[in-house]
Amino acid sequence: MRSRTKLISAVMRVRNNLAFATHKFFQERGYQYIHTPIITASDCEGAGELFQVTTSMPAHNGPINKMKLYEYEGQEHEEVKAEDPKSKKQQKKEKNKKKKEGEEEPAEEEKKEAAPEKKIIPFEDRKINYKEDFFGRPAYLTCSGQLNVETYACGMGDVYTFGPTFRAENSNTSRHLAEFWMIEPELVFADLSDLMDCAEDYTKYCVRYILENNKDDVAFFNKEVDKALLERLEQLDAVAFKRLSYTEGIDILLEDLAAKKVKFEKKPVWGTDLGSEHERYLAEKVFKQPVIVYNYPKEFKAFYMKQNDDGKTVQAMDMLVPGIGELIGGSAREENLEKLDKMIEEKGLNKDDYWWYRETRKFGTQPHAGFGLGFERLVMLCTGIENIRDTIPFPRTPKKADF
Amino acid sequence: MRSRTKLISAVMRVRNNLAFATHKFFQERGYQYIHTPIITASDCEGAGELFQVTTSMPAHNGPINKMKLYEYEGQEHEEVKAEDPKSKKQQKKEKNKKKKEGEEEPAEEEKKEAAPEKKIIPFEDRKINYKEDFFGRPAYLTCSGQLNVETYACGMGDVYTFGPTFRAENSNTSRHLAEFWMIEPELVFADLSDLMDCAEDYTKYCVRYILENNKDDVAFFNKEVDKALLERLEQLDAVAFKRLSYTEGIDILLEDLAAKKVKFEKKPVWGTDLGSEHERYLAEKVFKQPVIVYNYPKEFKAFYMKQNDDGKTVQAMDMLVPGIGELIGGSAREENLEKLDKMIEEKGLNKDDYWWYRETRKFGTQPHAGFGLGFERLVMLCTGIENIRDTIPFPRTPKKADF
Repeated sequence: MRSRTKLISAVMRVRNNLAFATHKFFQERGYQYIHTPIITASDCEGAGELFQVTTSMPAHNGPINKMKLYEYEGQEHEEVKAEDPKSKKQQKKEKNKKKKEGEEEPAEEEKKEAAPEKKIIPFEDRKINYKEDFFGRPAYLTCSGQLNVETYACGMGDVYTFGPTFRAENSNTSRHLAEFWMIEPELVFADLSDLMDCAEDYTKYCVRYILENNKDDVAFFNKEVDKALLERLEQLDAVAFKRLSYTEGIDILLEDLAAKKVKFEKKPVWGTDLGSEHERYLAEKVFKQPVIVYNYPKEFKAFYMKQNDDGKTVQAMDMLVPGIGELIGGSAREENLEKLDKMIEEKGLNKDDYWWYRETRKFGTQPHAGFGLGFERLVMLCTGIENIRDTIPFPRTPKKADF
Repeated sequence: MRSRTKLISAVMRVRNNLAFATHKFFQERGYQYIHTPIITASDCEGAGELFQVTTSMPAHNGPINKMKLYEYEGQEHEEVKAEDPKSKKQQKKEKNKKKKEGEEEPAEEEKKEAAPEKKIIPFEDRKINYKEDFFGRPAYLTCSGQLNVETYACGMGDVYTFGPTFRAENSNTSRHLAEFWMIEPELVFADLSDLMDCAEDYTKYCVRYILENNKDDVAFFNKEVDKALLERLEQLDAVAFKRLSYTEGIDILLEDLAAKKVKFEKKPVWGTDLGSEHERYLAEKVFKQPVIVYNYPKEFKAFYMKQNDDGKTVQAMDMLVPGIGELIGGSAREENLEKLDKMIEEKGLNKDDYWWYRETRKFGTQPHAGFGLGFERLVMLCTGIENIRDTIPFPRTPKKADF
């Protein structure tokens, strides 16, 4: 029945036009639309909040003894060895080491391998045999297509992705969805300034498209949902977005705090991320218009962001919009393999997990930059709707996956 | 490295333009683009081949005793009761029945419910406690957005969906992907003939768009991949697609078989689905052009298809294209709730699973019709590429979910 309400159908008409405006904007500028994968075996970032995709669960809600499990000790290790040539090599190395140390040990190991009987693992302690799962290993729903689309940027030039992404975060708020759509363009031969231009142009293009093509719907929202909507959208189209560095932003926040112009729950500190209260204060109170903050400290930003010469900051940027907060986040990418590797190490990540991403730097690369935008945020911006669940035809949240 | 090859980048440029042509075609005709859900708890159709989406697997490949399981007998039933108000009612009814039968039994049952100790289930026989899973019950990756998008068609008019769909079929052929993109328009106040017009117009629009906007790529494919490509595409744009009923199709196949013009592995029989050999024979040998076959026997078609007055056939249609086989499949929908319910029953399905779909008929409806098209098939058609894995940026197949 939801689709028959006046509110939801108006939102979906705006959503439809925002999707088409997105494609038009990038197509008119020669970007190629790339469908990045939904299912991925890379669980590199934020693995804790990913949905797993599997065919290993017991069918028809059967008992767990129907699952494929490792039954014997050592079985699991053998399987992993067979899949991963690198660990095989490493094993050989270790064997050789042992050989040097003494003659007894390798003989013992060979015996173990030949032995037909193995120790049975107690049922409770068994692990799932992912060799028997559909993809031969644990697979997940993607939380971003960025790293994937970068490989096509390096091959084909300007590209963008527009597809569903997922987060298994167990929060039942009006600002979270488990399934949402993201737009992620990647610009080649582009620096941070080009990226900020693109983000601003794109946002304005979308807003203008809605103002022109959804007049009735905007009037309806302006009357029934948010009386300031029309004014905000028209201003957004008219002004040049304010750009300031993270350091300048922190200075403003600290000055206003010292002058008792504002109170924050958390004091802003250089080197820590801006909170939502700080972002909204800058956009809504200080500048009263969209603001782009750039050059963030590297500590809390992703490993792939291009490092500045100061050794402290990276070329990241966030677009903050009144009423919404962060709408867009992006960065120039580190194209220097040496610097990239150092950052992977600093962040405590494993270089081998990113072998294919590192190859895009190894075999010829170009300066490139990209941003990500949660599509539902854009719908909120253009409709004044405050509950993100009303911006998508079939919202998915904890305990809700109806229809 | 894949994206840097001449072949793959040419395919992806065609794919990009086919995606944009799809949006342009439907937008120009006033269709609303609806994002149907990727994760769904409806496992009604073909449940055997669905991927399950879960947060219940043991983290970091831990032992299965880390999973949330039912520990006591009866625990599972109680949980289900708490979720489903209908089964609660039913339970009450049963209780009342029992009361009438004798006074002893309900007293016993109440005792049981109050008892704090329950029988422990042996570990191997325990079931997964889906109350603790993210969506509170088993959830799956969608295999079609059609039923979902129909609810919006009934609310908003002409709509279409264009998004990823999934099939966990364990087949490693050049024609199957586990993750692929589908386009599913739904036309309101439309009958089978309108639907066939739309399918033909859409296909021609896409082909023309590629002939006009990817001249170099088509020339490349025509030289390197399939020497008949250009001719086939130009014919497809020029001719009116041949339309014939399923019964006429079977007659032609049987005549040619009797005249020994052709041999089939399987003899065509009225009442069974056309095989790929039959479809391709009709399109490639008999008519040598695209063919739309309509009015199929209801036996092997889906429950929601509009029934003809003959009591035998439904208003389904398949578009068969030389070199590809079936490109599009669709139907007029049964808008009569009584007839729909009868078909659900005939197919051995459960009416309650479709309560929300049935409501779109119950509370005012209109004649509507829709089709589905596997986007990768369209890419194959326009490039001559024969391996479906080369038509998508990141192919997902059994044992393959890299990057």
